Amino acid sequence: MALFSKRYHPPGTPPGTLAPATDQAPPRIRRIDYSASQIDVKEALCLDDCTPSPNAESIRWVHLQGTPDVATLSHLGRVFGLHPLALEDVANSGQRPKFDAFDEHLFIILSLPELIDGHVRTRQISLFLAPRLVLSFCEGEQDPFEGLVRNLQLRSGKIRSLGADYLLYALMDTVIDQPFPLLEEFGMRLEQLEESLLEYPNEATLAEIHGVKRDLILLRRLLWPQREVVNRVQRDGEDLITDNTRLYLRDCYDHTVQVMDLLESYREMNAALLDIYLSSQGNRMNEVMRVLTVIATLFIPLTFIVGLYGMNFDTRVSPWNMPELGWRYGYVAVWGLMIAMVVGMLAYFRRKNWI
Amino acid sequence: MALFSKRYHPPGTPPGTLAPATDQAPPRIRRIDYSASQIDVKEALCLDDCTPSPNAESIRWVHLQGTPDVATLSHLGRVFGLHPLALEDVANSGQRPKFDAFDEHLFIILSLPELIDGHVRTRQISLFLAPRLVLSFCEGEQDPFEGLVRNLQLRSGKIRSLGADYLLYALMDTVIDQPFPLLEEFGMRLEQLEESLLEYPNEATLAEIHGVKRDLILLRRLLWPQREVVNRVQRDGEDLITDNTRLYLRDCYDHTVQVMDLLESYREMNAALLDIYLSSQGNRMNEVMRVLTVIATLFIPLTFIVGLYGMNFDTRVSPWNMPELGWRYGYVAVWGLMIAMVVGMLAYFRRKNWI
Amino acid sequence: MALFSKRYHPPGTPPGTLAPATDQAPPRIRRIDYSASQIDVKEALCLDDCTPSPNAESIRWVHLQGTPDVATLSHLGRVFGLHPLALEDVANSGQRPKFDAFDEHLFIILSLPELIDGHVRTRQISLFLAPRLVLSFCEGEQDPFEGLVRNLQLRSGKIRSLGADYLLYALMDTVIDQPFPLLEEFGMRLEQLEESLLEYPNEATLAEIHGVKRDLILLRRLLWPQREVVNRVQRDGEDLITDNTRLYLRDCYDHTVQVMDLLESYREMNAALLDIYLSSQGNRMNEVMRVLTVIATLFIPLTFIVGLYGMNFDTRVSPWNMPELGWRYGYVAVWGLMIAMVVGMLAYFRRKNWI
Amino acid sequence: MALFSKRYHPPGTPPGTLAPATDQAPPRIRRIDYSASQIDVKEALCLDDCTPSPNAESIRWVHLQGTPDVATLSHLGRVFGLHPLALEDVANSGQRPKFDAFDEHLFIILSLPELIDGHVRTRQISLFLAPRLVLSFCEGEQDPFEGLVRNLQLRSGKIRSLGADYLLYALMDTVIDQPFPLLEEFGMRLEQLEESLLEYPNEATLAEIHGVKRDLILLRRLLWPQREVVNRVQRDGEDLITDNTRLYLRDCYDHTVQVMDLLESYREMNAALLDIYLSSQGNRMNEVMRVLTVIATLFIPLTFIVGLYGMNFDTRVSPWNMPELGWRYGYVAVWGLMIAMVVGMLAYFRRKNWI
Amino acid sequence: MALFSKRYHPPGTPPGTLAPATDQAPPRIRRIDYSASQIDVKEALCLDDCTPSPNAESIRWVHLQGTPDVATLSHLGRVFGLHPLALEDVANSGQRPKFDAFDEHLFIILSLPELIDGHVRTRQISLFLAPRLVLSFCEGEQDPFEGLVRNLQLRSGKIRSLGADYLLYALMDTVIDQPFPLLEEFGMRLEQLEESLLEYPNEATLAEIHGVKRDLILLRRLLWPQREVVNRVQRDGEDLITDNTRLYLRDCYDHTVQVMDLLESYREMNAALLDIYLSSQGNRMNEVMRVLTVIATLFIPLTFIVGLYGMNFDTRVSPWNMPELGWRYGYVAVWGLMIAMVVGMLAYFRRKNWI
Repeated sequence: MALFSKRYHPPGTPPGTLAPATDQAPPRIRRIDYSASQIDVKEALCLDDCTPSPNAESIRWVHLQGTPDVATLSHLGRVFGLHPLALEDVANSGQRPKFDAFDEHLFIILSLPELIDGHVRTRQISLFLAPRLVLSFCEGEQDPFEGLVRNLQLRSGKIRSLGADYLLYALMDTVIDQPFPLLEEFGMRLEQLEESLLEYPNEATLAEIHGVKRDLILLRRLLWPQREVVNRVQRDGEDLITDNTRLYLRDCYDHTVQVMDLLESYREMNAALLDIYLSSQGNRMNEVMRVLTVIATLFIPLTFIVGLYGMNFDTRVSPWNMPELGWRYGYVAVWGLMIAMVVGMLAYFRRKNWI
Repeated sequence: MALFSKRYHPPGTPPGTLAPATDQAPPRIRRIDYSASQIDVKEALCLDDCTPSPNAESIRWVHLQGTPDVATLSHLGRVFGLHPLALEDVANSGQRPKFDAFDEHLFIILSLPELIDGHVRTRQISLFLAPRLVLSFCEGEQDPFEGLVRNLQLRSGKIRSLGADYLLYALMDTVIDQPFPLLEEFGMRLEQLEESLLEYPNEATLAEIHGVKRDLILLRRLLWPQREVVNRVQRDGEDLITDNTRLYLRDCYDHTVQVMDLLESYREMNAALLDIYLSSQGNRMNEVMRVLTVIATLFIPLTFIVGLYGMNFDTRVSPWNMPELGWRYGYVAVWGLMIAMVVGMLAYFRRKNWI
Repeated sequence: MALFSKRYHPPGTPPGTLAPATDQAPPRIRRIDYSASQIDVKEALCLDDCTPSPNAESIRWVHLQGTPDVATLSHLGRVFGLHPLALEDVANSGQRPKFDAFDEHLFIILSLPELIDGHVRTRQISLFLAPRLVLSFCEGEQDPFEGLVRNLQLRSGKIRSLGADYLLYALMDTVIDQPFPLLEEFGMRLEQLEESLLEYPNEATLAEIHGVKRDLILLRRLLWPQREVVNRVQRDGEDLITDNTRLYLRDCYDHTVQVMDLLESYREMNAALLDIYLSSQGNRMNEVMRVLTVIATLFIPLTFIVGLYGMNFDTRVSPWNMPELGWRYGYVAVWGLMIAMVVGMLAYFRRKNWI
Repeated sequence: MALFSKRYHPPGTPPGTLAPATDQAPPRIRRIDYSASQIDVKEALCLDDCTPSPNAESIRWVHLQGTPDVATLSHLGRVFGLHPLALEDVANSGQRPKFDAFDEHLFIILSLPELIDGHVRTRQISLFLAPRLVLSFCEGEQDPFEGLVRNLQLRSGKIRSLGADYLLYALMDTVIDQPFPLLEEFGMRLEQLEESLLEYPNEATLAEIHGVKRDLILLRRLLWPQREVVNRVQRDGEDLITDNTRLYLRDCYDHTVQVMDLLESYREMNAALLDIYLSSQGNRMNEVMRVLTVIATLFIPLTFIVGLYGMNFDTRVSPWNMPELGWRYGYVAVWGLMIAMVVGMLAYFRRKNWI
Repeated sequence: MALFSKRYHPPGTPPGTLAPATDQAPPRIRRIDYSASQIDVKEALCLDDCTPSPNAESIRWVHLQGTPDVATLSHLGRVFGLHPLALEDVANSGQRPKFDAFDEHLFIILSLPELIDGHVRTRQISLFLAPRLVLSFCEGEQDPFEGLVRNLQLRSGKIRSLGADYLLYALMDTVIDQPFPLLEEFGMRLEQLEESLLEYPNEATLAEIHGVKRDLILLRRLLWPQREVVNRVQRDGEDLITDNTRLYLRDCYDHTVQVMDLLESYREMNAALLDIYLSSQGNRMNEVMRVLTVIATLFIPLTFIVGLYGMNFDTRVSPWNMPELGWRYGYVAVWGLMIAMVVGMLAYFRRKNWI
């Protein structure tokens, strides 16, 4: 269900409980140790390799792709000293983006939106920052940080020479910028909808307007708190975040604001499109009614007249009984009358702007 | 009445007055004394057992299930030194969730929402926190804290080794998480409504959309202040709340925020569904009108023509009087004329996109 | 006029001017001196008895029921040292609830809502608090504080033993709680409206929805500032308000918040009802249109056919001229054709879900 | 144009530029020197008389009625040391109400709303306050401060004995209270509209509702910042505003709040009236449709029947060809059938609540 | 695409990356060195002339007209020590207006709105302020600062004698005032729309209302953050902004507020126009329906009557079979009946206010 994607414990469960998620593949684990001079990337590790770095010089980044099981989380919690509430949030996916500063580490949840079959779906990203250590969790199959791993290996950018907090920023930046292609897609859809609405509105358009609206509602629920998270990391990150990284996080924050700005104006555009749709419905109804009225109004009196002369009054018993039926020009006169009526009504309709 | 469930004194009643509630069963009383090493659960006690704990080591939790009568409240007020304004709020159920820090104790009112016959109903939960003492009141029959009692007995979680403030948190957490199953239910209803609206909208759907809207309005009135209450307990709880519990309350606060987020996006979804409903009404009307117009427009001129030749003009007195009636191919020609008209009109309607 | 009930001076009038109000009865004056041990209630006094209390032990409460005239206000201003701006506000009824802390006294305006003929009307309550002195003004005939006077005489509650600020609180509490019965009434009306709308909506319902909306708009204009007034008395009351009374005022503030909560959700309910009303209008129109379309569509082709065979083509001059008229089973065949058409159309309508 | 009444320089013009306004009469200048004991009013002065007061005891008030030309403004700027940005704002009328505290003087722009031909128009009022000096500018012909001049001469009120800041307050108070009569007028219009809508809505009502809405939008744009201006004069006026005057400005601020309250509830009322209008449109349509449906439904089947017996089947060739035509009671039976149908349909309509 | 005009890197690109924009002309470079006594304007320079000023007395303003390429930006970044994040924002046009205070310089992005073919388009303006240096970038062909260059050369205004911060203000002021002519244009369009709506609403009006709405949504997205930018330059500009310039920036801020005020009231007007459009649609429909109903209701019964007497009952076999057909005044009586019916129905319609 897209509207309620949160996993939650039954109310009354003790806090910090890790419920076993059903039928999940074990997460893929990648460990990277790097410093300015060297880098060591290890894929597909087992749980026992997830330990603090023995080397005080290098920075360790452990990434778990897929939903982690209870055993993995307990192990990581024990080895890295992670707070049970944070582990609970990692396990219960569908969390609202949040930031928590625990004594020893920062904990961040972000939301990675994707378009699947034209609809917004999200995956939860969980990040821990401790000194010289970054732990990242990402739901689902596809790894969003592959480009970043390549960048690290290529020694490109400043990333290799800066600390773990800059790595955290790089991870956050990747997630934060994800909505831009989505919003570009929605912007395109809105412009197409607008065009097709002003040209030829139909019922399919309504379903599409609603689909966009629904996705924007979902996106907004995710992205709005993301903005606050970036702001709080920058403000309350304390010693773990250096001033230099703070500058970059400020830029990251600007991106979240820009995303919200776009989202809000799309929502307004969408509402405007619905207004047009409703108005054009009214216009169509008016047009149909007008045609019906014109035709009915033209022919109903005529039908009355021809019905009149279809009556079987006996013209022989009385000179009052429709003598026109026996006149030489009676039929022609009736046609003349009817034509005059039609012309008169057409003139009236023209004056009323109906035709 | 769901819209106005508050009990209140007639204006001008002196503050702190406890009005006797009519026809209520006496509340069931449970007393639990526990410390890290031992636990003592007593059910169905009488009023005289509700006293401060004689043991300075253990924590006492007194729970009253059901609406307390005046005598009970006065007794508790006297024995535990509770403020008369707080007692008045316990007695007058239907209060807005609130937090009050009195000199000796904290006082918290929460709201426990439930789905009864598919509609939201709420029960008031009142909590007092004093040093080594928690007092809880819950309206109604069913006890929401039974799971917690079992947890206490099982020595599971940290709850036994932490203070009374952690017990308070555990009680609050139980209440705070209650809306999740409700919201899941509403999310499901909204998705079903959406599906049925896009397929085949009918009047029953309207009543259901309204029912959901109404329940969301009621839920929002309850849950919005709950958020503020949790925030204030954490912020203004002072000495009675330890820093460790504060961390847990922050998590609890995040849940209230998440609940509000869901609620708000449901409200938007609901409004979007109403828009679809109204548009689809308009579409149906348009379709019906179109069929009517097409049929009327096709047949009205034809009916005029057949009426025309039903006129009783005497063809014998004048060659002008409908000579077609006596022609060999007159009838065929009329059919030709009518078929031509129908074809012409159908082409016109096709061009107008009406058929 | 309900929408604009404020009395105001023509712009440019010097501040503090007291304009004589026309045709008013002189206010009834009641003076109460009380201390913990004794109480002295004097009704229907004249203006000269309104002086500061000569007894330093007792608290004096002077209440004026009715619109005070210029002479009275000037006298009171002089005797008790009241600020001319405050006196101007007492005279110009229909003021927004407000709080002003002058050097020597606090000045409070509240609004007392009442239901008169089912519509909201308000009366202005003006209160002054000075050391050991409370001055109260209430417009209109009926005295809202009669219950309080009885309470004072009965020595019930703590009111006799506490200071003038507690008396002020008691007066405010009486006024603040006044909206509850009104809101209960409106809640009942809304539930009745909802029921009758879902059953059988008609035009009278619309007028009633609008009436409730209008009253809620008026109520909100009055009650919203009231909330701020109570908050400011508690916060900015300084020396004149003791800490104990502050606790009670906080409770009073909670009531104003609760009133606003109810009001806001009623406004939403009312808007939801209007939506239902409009949708049910659309539904009715659709139903009426459907019936019209079905009947017209069934009979219009039939009428064409019977018109066809009413044409007077001369069957004798040509075998092409409606030979059916002379067939043995021609008439039966026509009936067969018509019945087949009706059955076909009914099947089509059934498929379209119109019948 | 009412929607855009601001004069502005082309973008890129250097700040502080005074553009010559076209075809304006020179402003009328009035200079008043007063102290508690004496007053000297000079009308229709020329520019050279506008100088600081030579007398250290008295307060000088220079008022310019009409749009000042560039020469006047430059002269005043030079003589009184006014900031060029302030002078630019005086010249470019249609400014948003604003407050600026320059080093030597306070600068205030207010907006004076008027009803001209039933529509809101505004004039700009600019005020400067320096020690013992007030400078005021008012657009247009009619002087709003004439009453104040009379008050000054009459030695009434405290105004003569208080400082220049109290004079400023008196000027502001005159302008601030100006919306009250306008709002009273709009309140009356709304009540009349409401009455006429519930009785007999027509298209003229729509135009009037829109007219009121438009005026309220304009008024709101002017009055909303006015509120902030009064607040800031009181708060940021520093040494130039005495504590006593501050008390009066607070009262003035309360008036602006009251004006906004009224305005907002009028806007809501106006929106409510539009809702009624739309609903009553729907109701009328429903009523018209119902009549049409009832009549069509009654007569269409009847017309079919009479058409049926108008067919020219030859009753002689076959006993199947409408033998009723030759029956003794055939015609009566047809009438019976038709009456039965009408009665049946009427009963059906009655059950459907259509008649 | 107007809805999404932002250029962005694919998510995951390292921060500070400058992507080469495709097919752009190299920017035109203008360098101005000025002091109070002298000025030196150089047009069409190459990149190597863009260096810090060698002269400590004069202020250098380097302006680049057109989209800068990667090489240009890297060069400028190196020479003037600009932050890579700022350069990235200059390159990725379509940014939200923003303000960033870097260690050595201030960085400002503004948005220059223009009307192209009646639609709002924007160009990005980027400004850097360092001590005695201003760097400005403007997209597109047309240079908005030409007037300012002329002013500088003319030694008019204070601009020559004040610092680089005043130049920055002058640039910002030029951009900030740009919306005024646009808003004037939109105000005019709205008034024309209003007039044409109240006179004769048609479908073209709807498209125009929507076009204005769309443009106002876009404008608002741009201008809203612009307001915050001006405020932050004034507040957080620190040492680089002098107190005197701050005064001018405050004026600039007032302009942005005024722009937003206008925009908001235009949006409200636009919504009001849509309401009128929808209502007038309903009115037209009502009118058309009324005519249809009146005509149908008049003629349907008449057609029934004439059909009745068109039945072929054999008057010879029975005296019950329409004896009227053989009466002397039968036909006249039928006419009398029909005229009576018409008169009766007309009276009924008149009473119903339908004609």
